[in-house]
Amino acid sequence: MSPNLFADSPGSAGEQVVALLSRPGLRIEKIVSTGQSSPAGFWYDQPEAEWVVVLSGEARLRFEDEVRPRKLGPGDFVDIPAHRRHRVEWTHPDQPTVWLAVHYR
Amino acid sequence: MSPNLFADSPGSAGEQVVALLSRPGLRIEKIVSTGQSSPAGFWYDQPEAEWVVVLSGEARLRFEDEVRPRKLGPGDFVDIPAHRRHRVEWTHPDQPTVWLAVHYR
Repeated sequence: MSPNLFADSPGSAGEQVVALLSRPGLRIEKIVSTGQSSPAGFWYDQPEAEWVVVLSGEARLRFEDEVRPRKLGPGDFVDIPAHRRHRVEWTHPDQPTVWLAVHYR
Repeated sequence: MSPNLFADSPGSAGEQVVALLSRPGLRIEKIVSTGQSSPAGFWYDQPEAEWVVVLSGEARLRFEDEVRPRKLGPGDFVDIPAHRRHRVEWTHPDQPTVWLAVHYR
């Protein structure tokens, strides 16, 4: 049987991050948010780029250089260059938001 | 508005391949199969590795070094090393099979 992206992972209290593939310069992760958001005033400032897609649920992603957050629903994807500051403003509190993130150099 | 993985692409007769991200050593593609399979006797023998997940639909993926094809449904993923010979034996004829493929070096 193949491993499954949508399978529950054990012990998932809080936001869940599961590494699906890890190679030099490449990391594919599944992230499951259940209402979590970035702490107030916090910005991600990542040394690597990240291509990310929402597969289920709903989220709002804010870039520091944009006025309004982007609403992301199933299938919406964004490429985030290294060091482009961003934060997760909101994820749906009542249903899991599943992200697939490809971190790359 | 963010680009969407599940959005229809124009002019999609036959199997559809859409590049979502293209960087040195990394290519993310969406593939939509509607009953297509690899030609008889054909094996993919790729110079790059491929991590691939089925997001909707159903497929059977066969490796030359395995006796039976693997059944893949929504969320099932496989990492295919470079030059591991494989073929798509079947995709569901009545519903689109959406693959997300990450080709990497």
